[in-house]
Amino acid sequence: MTQPDKWLFTPGPLTTSATVKQAQLRDIGSRDREFVDVVSDIRRRLLVLAGQADDTRYTAVLMQGSGTFGVESVISSTLAPGEKLLVLVNGAYGRRIRQMAQVLQIPVRVLEYPEDQQIHAGDVDRALAEDAEIAMVAVVHCETTTGILNPIAELAEVVQRHQRKLFIDAMSSFGAVPVDVAQLGITYLVSSANKCIEGVPGFSFAIADRAALQQSAGCARSLSLDLHAQWQGLEANGHFRFTPPVHALLAFQQALLELEAEGGVVGRAARYAENHRVLNAGMAAIGFRNYLVPDVQGNIITTFHYPDHPNFDFDQFYDRLAVRGFVIYPGKVTQAACFRLGNIGRMYPEQMRALVAAIEDTLHEMNVTLLAHNK
Amino acid sequence: MTQPDKWLFTPGPLTTSATVKQAQLRDIGSRDREFVDVVSDIRRRLLVLAGQADDTRYTAVLMQGSGTFGVESVISSTLAPGEKLLVLVNGAYGRRIRQMAQVLQIPVRVLEYPEDQQIHAGDVDRALAEDAEIAMVAVVHCETTTGILNPIAELAEVVQRHQRKLFIDAMSSFGAVPVDVAQLGITYLVSSANKCIEGVPGFSFAIADRAALQQSAGCARSLSLDLHAQWQGLEANGHFRFTPPVHALLAFQQALLELEAEGGVVGRAARYAENHRVLNAGMAAIGFRNYLVPDVQGNIITTFHYPDHPNFDFDQFYDRLAVRGFVIYPGKVTQAACFRLGNIGRMYPEQMRALVAAIEDTLHEMNVTLLAHNK
Repeated sequence: MTQPDKWLFTPGPLTTSATVKQAQLRDIGSRDREFVDVVSDIRRRLLVLAGQADDTRYTAVLMQGSGTFGVESVISSTLAPGEKLLVLVNGAYGRRIRQMAQVLQIPVRVLEYPEDQQIHAGDVDRALAEDAEIAMVAVVHCETTTGILNPIAELAEVVQRHQRKLFIDAMSSFGAVPVDVAQLGITYLVSSANKCIEGVPGFSFAIADRAALQQSAGCARSLSLDLHAQWQGLEANGHFRFTPPVHALLAFQQALLELEAEGGVVGRAARYAENHRVLNAGMAAIGFRNYLVPDVQGNIITTFHYPDHPNFDFDQFYDRLAVRGFVIYPGKVTQAACFRLGNIGRMYPEQMRALVAAIEDTLHEMNVTLLAHNK
Repeated sequence: MTQPDKWLFTPGPLTTSATVKQAQLRDIGSRDREFVDVVSDIRRRLLVLAGQADDTRYTAVLMQGSGTFGVESVISSTLAPGEKLLVLVNGAYGRRIRQMAQVLQIPVRVLEYPEDQQIHAGDVDRALAEDAEIAMVAVVHCETTTGILNPIAELAEVVQRHQRKLFIDAMSSFGAVPVDVAQLGITYLVSSANKCIEGVPGFSFAIADRAALQQSAGCARSLSLDLHAQWQGLEANGHFRFTPPVHALLAFQQALLELEAEGGVVGRAARYAENHRVLNAGMAAIGFRNYLVPDVQGNIITTFHYPDHPNFDFDQFYDRLAVRGFVIYPGKVTQAACFRLGNIGRMYPEQMRALVAAIEDTLHEMNVTLLAHNK
């Protein structure tokens, strides 16, 4: 290639380290001992990231496909016929879980909030009190739609008290926001290879309460996405039931080592917090307005309002930044014209400052001037 | 790494070229124009491999996950409620399709044959004549269980005459056995990135009759595996609905270029035929007996009986070959003690001869002597 790759200010796939990508320069047999050891090592390290020193109470199950495939493996294969799902929605990924339940013909109830507001634990408490048919509660930890963080500790307390199952879609948070699944009583947590662990895309994984997973045998509504059967396969001989994405797994093992070298979840969270601080301060100095109030904003991805200026055109803005080597991300909120900047991946404050400078230049080029609201 | 990778004599994931693996050394945005162009180029080239100069009648839809996910996307999302599937079985992959239908609660009928015999078109003719509820017939082209090739042209003629849909699981054959989907009237054909096209694992693809696929809207039994929705997403803006395995797709584009440089399907078929001839002749010279008769044996993977000798132990045989740098594959037939050797991937007659020599040495080391039946 003649020029370096662009920096990816997206929610993933991300800019990964050279060493993570280089781990893909091998071909190893998917049933050979060497690969079985890789899979076993990955499963063990994932449990540590989830706050578990061993696999006494939880197990890690890897699933081919994108994060959505992992989420659907839980939704489609852990609820018995007739069991109801309560989905807590404040963005597109919560809505996606509701859509899954509908396609799968799983009884579903929804508590929906505006996209700039957190889920309220009190509402969940009331819903569970009045509806005994709800077997599981599903909530997105960091809604990539906006970057909002939901209060999963409060929600977990309520769900535990009502003795229901709790499913956390931790796609955009796992590896960069500390979580102890046992302490919160989480039943299933799903995330993906290409988010805060900084691997390449190709699979997702579930951290699953072993007892609950054991009980889910026979509940699957498809063969491919059967989480219990996938677990049984991995436990029996270390093999995936169906062809694994070998190269993505090799990259992921390297990514896990690099995460540990950075100080684990706490170390990574600190870098992302600093990335976010630098990026946000720079954007504020230019005059961009945040979609979320600071209290609910995570350190993963940030939503900004379009500049209120007639010369601003997002597609042009995107293209001009891409030419400069920066890939940004369109908005996904339903009620406002916004775009998003991710600050995760193998990036540092240096790249955040470079992006802010490029945005400033680009706006100048487009003859867009902003009122510096935040100055 | 301190030593080179072992050669993979398996049905996949395979030994790929260095350049295919190196294509993964990039990070590009999954919604950026550059990646959209990669996906579009891949879809176009896949149609050419299926004998289609353009997308007038067929379209190529990429699906995350292993080949099984691709097969299940067709089985689970293209049959309307109540439509029956006829599955033609002579191995584990045919049985897997039946199992999918059962899990998905799709009405299914099965014609099953011994694993060393081809499907008989006459039986299919009778089954379709007597059962008007059968909407689709599913058959595996090259059963990886044994390496047997099923007579898809004869079967296609019957299915076309009865005006039913035809699904071909071409996992192990596509790219190395010429097929013109339009000429055979195939409705859906599925294969995977890490088979005869010699990419890395991470996704599968369907070559789909556009009219049939259009009619399947709303038939999906899951969100992730909805083939029609995936197609609509790719057509609308070139995006996957859910995160694509970017690096596996970059590798696949390179693999497609290398397939074309080898002379396309015909050129690759010739190399695999020669690989198979050399390997088979060498194994026969040692005294190994084939599980299949030559008439039905494809040039992809070959099943050999265990040597009839008290000192032979497959695990030991496998391990000793692995130490020498050769990964072989266990058997999967239900009625005989066998192992398998694949001859696909970036390998040439030179590697086939090296394996035969290593097998000869290994047997000598294990004090296993064979009668040279085939000499």
